[in-house]
Order: sequence, then structure tokens, then C-alpha cells
Amino acid sequence: MALKAKSPQESLTINTELVLPNDTNTLGNLMGGRLLHWMDIAAAISAHRHCGRIVVTASVNNVSFNQPIKLGEVVTLHAKVSRAFNSSMEVFIDVWVENNTTGQKIKCNEAIYTFVAVDQLGNPIHVPTLVPESEEEKQRYDSALRRRQLALILAGKMKPAEATELKKLFM
Amino acid sequence: MALKAKSPQESLTINTELVLPNDTNTLGNLMGGRLLHWMDIAAAISAHRHCGRIVVTASVNNVSFNQPIKLGEVVTLHAKVSRAFNSSMEVFIDVWVENNTTGQKIKCNEAIYTFVAVDQLGNPIHVPTLVPESEEEKQRYDSALRRRQLALILAGKMKPAEATELKKLFM
Amino acid sequence: MALKAKSPQESLTINTELVLPNDTNTLGNLMGGRLLHWMDIAAAISAHRHCGRIVVTASVNNVSFNQPIKLGEVVTLHAKVSRAFNSSMEVFIDVWVENNTTGQKIKCNEAIYTFVAVDQLGNPIHVPTLVPESEEEKQRYDSALRRRQLALILAGKMKPAEATELKKLFM
Amino acid sequence: MALKAKSPQESLTINTELVLPNDTNTLGNLMGGRLLHWMDIAAAISAHRHCGRIVVTASVNNVSFNQPIKLGEVVTLHAKVSRAFNSSMEVFIDVWVENNTTGQKIKCNEAIYTFVAVDQLGNPIHVPTLVPESEEEKQRYDSALRRRQLALILAGKMKPAEATELKKLFM
Amino acid sequence: MALKAKSPQESLTINTELVLPNDTNTLGNLMGGRLLHWMDIAAAISAHRHCGRIVVTASVNNVSFNQPIKLGEVVTLHAKVSRAFNSSMEVFIDVWVENNTTGQKIKCNEAIYTFVAVDQLGNPIHVPTLVPESEEEKQRYDSALRRRQLALILAGKMKPAEATELKKLFM
Amino acid sequence: MALKAKSPQESLTINTELVLPNDTNTLGNLMGGRLLHWMDIAAAISAHRHCGRIVVTASVNNVSFNQPIKLGEVVTLHAKVSRAFNSSMEVFIDVWVENNTTGQKIKCNEAIYTFVAVDQLGNPIHVPTLVPESEEEKQRYDSALRRRQLALILAGKMKPAEATELKKLFM
Repeated sequence: MALKAKSPQESLTINTELVLPNDTNTLGNLMGGRLLHWMDIAAAISAHRHCGRIVVTASVNNVSFNQPIKLGEVVTLHAKVSRAFNSSMEVFIDVWVENNTTGQKIKCNEAIYTFVAVDQLGNPIHVPTLVPESEEEKQRYDSALRRRQLALILAGKMKPAEATELKKLFM
Repeated sequence: MALKAKSPQESLTINTELVLPNDTNTLGNLMGGRLLHWMDIAAAISAHRHCGRIVVTASVNNVSFNQPIKLGEVVTLHAKVSRAFNSSMEVFIDVWVENNTTGQKIKCNEAIYTFVAVDQLGNPIHVPTLVPESEEEKQRYDSALRRRQLALILAGKMKPAEATELKKLFM
Repeated sequence: MALKAKSPQESLTINTELVLPNDTNTLGNLMGGRLLHWMDIAAAISAHRHCGRIVVTASVNNVSFNQPIKLGEVVTLHAKVSRAFNSSMEVFIDVWVENNTTGQKIKCNEAIYTFVAVDQLGNPIHVPTLVPESEEEKQRYDSALRRRQLALILAGKMKPAEATELKKLFM
Repeated sequence: MALKAKSPQESLTINTELVLPNDTNTLGNLMGGRLLHWMDIAAAISAHRHCGRIVVTASVNNVSFNQPIKLGEVVTLHAKVSRAFNSSMEVFIDVWVENNTTGQKIKCNEAIYTFVAVDQLGNPIHVPTLVPESEEEKQRYDSALRRRQLALILAGKMKPAEATELKKLFM
Repeated sequence: MALKAKSPQESLTINTELVLPNDTNTLGNLMGGRLLHWMDIAAAISAHRHCGRIVVTASVNNVSFNQPIKLGEVVTLHAKVSRAFNSSMEVFIDVWVENNTTGQKIKCNEAIYTFVAVDQLGNPIHVPTLVPESEEEKQRYDSALRRRQLALILAGKMKPAEATELKKLFM
Repeated sequence: MALKAKSPQESLTINTELVLPNDTNTLGNLMGGRLLHWMDIAAAISAHRHCGRIVVTASVNNVSFNQPIKLGEVVTLHAKVSRAFNSSMEVFIDVWVENNTTGQKIKCNEAIYTFVAVDQLGNPIHVPTLVPESEEEKQRYDSALRRRQLALILAGKMKPAEATELKKLFM
């Protein structure tokens, strides 16, 4: 029996974190490792909401840290499944930091994690397909295939010549 | 005055972690986010040892989680600078898990983080160059340029057509 | 100059927590103290978003724990300012736990915290007024006065006979 | 067989905490949520000592935070069962902060938590009665009935008109 | 001006800890390192209460772990200064674990830590003398001199031949 | 069947820690209890690597804290089994702190922990013998017997007169 398809909105997971002293480095800025940990938890809950099963982190795509986040600032994470494959789900995490006085939110990070749904023995199992709705969701859905090819190449599981979607980029 | 070049061995940082209950998911396996955090700390210390300055995480490359690590297992991380650019350093982290009875170590993860050296105001500053010594260190040093081009493309700061090193892969 | 009034929606703060082993008691259920801590952080961020100033917890109203939350379950907290007085803000926190398989969310807790906005020296300062919009927001806004009288009585700062709003309850 | 009655002294639980950086907010003061967590642990151990069974937090009464507690200060908590009902126990927690130089202790908080004793399946079970001894213990024992009526009203489980003990307050 | 002498009772510090999952090893027993940490905090507060100054751990004497403490058990620590020297204080920590059903307390550890009182620059400063009162306090006060000689010998700061108190033991 | 003897090198365990805000006292220095905890974990992994079994901390020898370690400094711990008895192992932990600018490492602590290997029921079991190789390893191996006698005397399990190895020190 086919699993019922889901929208990205159904897996939306929001987290709001306050940067505490132990989260910061010598400059008083949030350490990258802490943010990676927060993103993993939000993304894992999002993937879990999509498939209703135990999920395990399979990979993390390129993550950039473009601007420092200071001690005492409020960080908001939005995680949403961007595409589902057989038993894996790609999750986008958008991160904002807000100005403590004006409350204005500035986008400071964007990351992509991949999770696999497993049964109690740790074996991969099928997940529902994802049907993107908004314009951004459709773009992320389309580009997911290209990222998957890149990941397979980097892992030595696909030859660059076979990555038809990806090759277009360089032609 | 030019900074004295360094070998990868001078930045080698080793960490040995014991997987505790709070580090695990419902299956009793180490959560990806915790490992990403451990890797960030080891890599940051390694980059700091290379340049003797404050370092901040700039980006994380593709990280794959290929096999589950169980509660109570011992995890060893080796971090070493693989290439230094103007003010940034690429760090390789190799992760092993050891069999609790035989003590045999199995390579379970490999990740690449990039750090930037900054002064007390957070402005980027020069770092020493790296001179690779072993065969593996030389390979990682060479491939760092390709990864840098890929990161610049993904960040929209370089056009694919200009990424000469990377293009060869797809030709 | 009067501060611009705000809607409850502007202070909405959402947090999604995963119950980890260290959060649980001998029965494998979430400990009350951990939930009180999570609620305090979400409510403090909400109050901070309302006034854009440093806020400190002033009091916690009656909180009931009606049903156990199990290890591995996902807990969602929604915090929203329900009424603003001179320098204090009352915040409602609604907590849901979701069924791990069906994803169905069940309301499991409701709590009310009060915060005071302070300057860098810790002295109370004015906060914007709150204008409730939805039906539930209006109800909570109205009942806030009654709770304030009850708190003042319990703290010995108001005589029961003067608590006109509250007395009606018992007549 | 009736359980042997106990004195409040038999459940006295003392905790001494040092305020560390991660426990503090932007002003360097102890965060309310952390104190709520400490109080829950001390009170839970106290209730456990009274009944010798697993206990779960049932509710928290009005808690006020009257004065800031600073980073590096020493906080002492005394928790003692104030009254036992069928399967629930009310616990008073008194909190002092001490001056770092003179060592003088100042009472800074007072809170009341309620716990329920449960068996391994989570079902409520009987607890020993409490026989107060000191003057303060007797006062707290007597007022416990009034608080119980208030809690039942706030939870919608008792009509204000039936709360005879409580009504006296407003007449 | 001489500092006023103090009794051991004035520095008594009590802590009650609940063994949580992250505190335990693969057998579900409290890890030694966690207990060492708890003892250090209780002893540091005790030394601080004796002298009213910042204190830093100077050394730990022989600590034995004679019996396993299980997950979910309640551990009580009593720390009390046993002797004061110029700027250092010896602190005894007695640890009990209590049976979860009967509540019976069994002594499971005894440890001796030494602290030095320092000023804001970290330089040692004088502390009040200690006047033991109970029989046990007097015994511990007397034997402190022998332990001090042993520590000095082990640190290479005293020749065994000069340790007159200690030598008697072996004659 | 006799267990195969091992060299100290086979149990070498390295840990590199960054001193974070929560690890420090009011002076911004690493707290002794945190270091004791770090040493316990490194030493436990080392003992586990020697015997491949569950290990529990049996005792801690005299540990001295000679110099302050500051917030943000990097601490390296090397743990290595120094001698194996029937079912117990003595582990040496050497600790260095490195200058943040020059990277120069200074030895700041040396500690000796003892562990016992146990089976799943917590009963002691045999461990492999240790064959020291370097000059330092041989010295530590020889002096282990003296320390064992001292520990037995302090625990009241041996009479000073029988401690032939130890008595030589005082003659």
C-alpha cells in the first residue's frame, strides 16, 4: 500500500534558542558546532514528522557560517523536508538571528541535512513522497536531485559522467 | 614578515569520546548532531594550533554518516589541517569507532571543516602556509583547491566556468 | 513618548524539544523540573520579543502536570504575551506532545509566567501595551487581572476585600 | 495495613548550588527556569523520602522571584513535605542566597510543589500521613487545605461555592 | 588583625544528588568522575564558607570507591573543613547512598580535598583557624598533620626523614 | 588460559579539551572537579583498552593542582596503564596546558587512578599483565607496588609493618 504523500508544511519544525555562555567561543560568539547540533535536532524532528518513524542522520551538505551570532541573541531555526526519496529525506534548515533591540530578523544560515527512516532493527524503510507547494519549496525540490548526484559522486558511488543533472552546471 | 610554514603533524588534535546516554537516539545510537559538535571542537583546536589565533568555523563540507555508533562505544577523532589559504584553513577529521571486546578500530566518518583566523575584533588575519608531508597529506592538500572552488560556486561567489580544477572532473 | 502597542502574535515563540534520557525519571517520563525550565526559556524569549528589553522571571502561576510525557517523544511549546502591565508581562505557554506514530498532537500543559522588563542596572522600565486579537487572546487578557489580584493577595500586597474582580468568583 | 505516619523532618532535603555562567541571563543573574528545575529536584527527593516510592511532579503553586541572585553566589534549598493527602504530597521549598563575604543568608524564595506517588505502571498509590511538629510546620499543614481547594478550582474540578476553607478569606 | 576562629559546623555543606542516566556507565552505576566532581563542588563551597574568600582546589587525597551506586539512587554529600593551615584548608567529604525503598542510608565514600584561599589576583591569603568540637572532628584535625606531611613527601617538598608525625606509623 | 600481556602504548588514550565558561570558577580558572572528571574518563577508556572489559573506578591517588588553567585554554590529557594486578589496573594521567599564542605545552598535572575490570554482574575478573617498555614506564611500573601498599594501609587492609616496599622510604 502506498504511503500518503505529504506537504513540506506538515513537517515544519520551529526552534528558538537563546545563546548562553557555554555556547560561545573566546570572542563571545556562538560556536559552529553548537549550531550544527541545534540544526540536527530540528531537522531530525522535521524528518520524523514527515515519516512517523525513527530517523537517523545520513549526511550534512555544505553549511556556511557567514556572520557571527553573539551571546544573548535569539536564534530561530525553521526545518522543513525538501524532498523524499525511497527511504531518505532531504531537510532544509533556515536560521535567523534577531536584533535584540529592534527585533528585526536577519537570515544567517542555511543548511541541508539528509536523514534515513529505519525500523527498530535499523533497516531502511519507505517514506511518503513529498509534494512541494510554494515557489521556494518547488525550487528546493528540483535542486535536490542535483545535490543527490553530487553526494553520490563525492562518496564514490556515482561516476561524474553519469551525473546528467549536475553536468549541466559546468557546460 | 612571512609566517613560518607548518606541517600537518603540528596541528594534529586527538579526542577520545565515550558515547553516553544523552548522546543517543531512540535506537541507542550516537546522534549525528553530537558527532558534528565533537568534530567542530577537535577541528577548531587543530586550526588554532596551526595559527595560534582565535578561529571561527566558516563552513562544513559534505559529511556522511555511514554506520551507527552504539551507546558505550569509544570514538576517536583525529583532526589535522589539510591546507591553509590566506586567512582560512581546511581541516580533515577522521573518526574511528572501536569494537568494545577486540579493541579493533573501524573508520566510520570523514569530514572537512573550514575555519577562519580572526583578531580580537573578528577581522580575518593571515595564517602560516601548510607544507604536507605524507602521501595522504599531499593528496588532501591537492584536492583542497577543488573543494574550495565547489564551495565558492555553491555560495554563488564563483561561476562554474571559472572553476578549472573542478571542471576536469566532469570532462 | 508612548510605546507602540503590540499584538500577541508578535511575541509568539515556538520551541520543539526531543525528550532525551537525562530529561527523564525512573519511569522514563519527562521530569517536571525540565519542563518548567523549557517553559521559562520560551516565555522569556516571548516577553523579550514584546518589549525589546532584558526581562527577568517575576513569578510562575499554578502549573499542572496532567499526563506523563515519555522518553523520545516530541514536545512543542507555544509562548505568547497575554497582557502587559506597567513594566510586567504575563505570558501563556501551551504545551503539546505528539504521538510518535500518528503525529497527532495532544495538549498536555498550560502555564502562566510573569516577567519584568529591566534596564542594564536591573530597574523596571515601561513596556508596550498589548492589544489582544483572537477570541482566546481576549479571554486570557481579561482573566489576567483576576490572576494579578490573586498573586498580590498571596504575596500579602493586597487585601482580599479589595480584590473586586476576584471576589465575584466566590459570590 | 496503614502506613506509619512520618514527621516533616524525615523528608528534609538540603541542596547547595553554586551559580555557574550557564545558569545566568544577560545581567549575570540566575535564570528563573534553572531555579525552578533545582527546586523540582530537591522537592522530588523530599517527597520520595516521605513515601519511599517513585514520585512525579503534579503541580507547582505560585512561585515569586523577589530578588536577583548573582553569578558565583551560593544558593541553599531546603525542601520538606508539608502535608500528605491520599496519594499526593505537598512540599515546601525555602531558598536562601548567601552574601559571599559575610556569609549571611537571606531568604530569597519560597515555593510549593505537589507530587503524586505512583507504582511501576504509573498508577497512584497511598502514602503515609504527615504529622507536623514545629509551629511553622503546623501552619503550613493547615494552609495546605486552602491551597488544595484553590488548585481544584483553578483546574475546574471544584466549584468556588464548595471551597469552604478558601471562601473565608474573602468574607 | 587575627581572623576569628571558626568551628567545623559553620562550614558544613550538604548536597543531595539524584543519579541520572548521563551520570552512569554501561553497568548503570554512577561513574567515579561524576562523584569526584560533585565532591569538589560541595568541598569548595565548604571551604568558601570557612574563609569567605575565593578558593581553588589544591589537591585531592586518596579516594576509594567501595560500592556501586545505581541509576535513580539518592546520594547525600556532607562536606566540612577538618583543619585550616596558613592559607589552605583540608575538607572532609562523607558520602551516603540511600536504599530507595527503606530509605536507609549507607556510608559509601569518604574523601579529603585541600583548597587554598586566594585574592582577586590569585595570590594566597590567610584563613581563620579551625577549632574542632566533636570527637570525630578532633580526630580528623589531628590526623590532618600526618596527611600534610605525606602530601609534601609525595610532592617532593619534604624529605621522609623529616616527617616526624608520619614516621611513627611505620616504627 | 593466560591473557596475552600488553604494552602501555596499547592503552594510550589522548583527550584534548577546550576550557568553556561553565568549567570555570569566579577567577575564570578551570575548576578542579571538572579536571578530575575529565581525567576519570580518559583513564577509564585507557583501562578499558588494556583489558577489553567493563571497568569501574576503584580509587584516586593524591592529585595536585599546581597552576591555574584559564578560560579558553587548550588542555591535553594522556592516560596510560602503568601496572596491572589481578583484576585491577593503575593508570597514569599526564596533563598539559598550552600557551594560546606560542602553542608551547606546559605539564600542569599528574594523577593516578585505579580501575577494576568487572563482568556484566559487577564481579572482578582477570586482566592481562602489563610489560613496561620505556624508561618512564618502567619507573612507574616499579613504584606502583609502593603506592598499592600505601593505599592498603590507608584503607586499613594492611599493617604498616608489612609494607616492606614502603618502609624503605622512611628508613
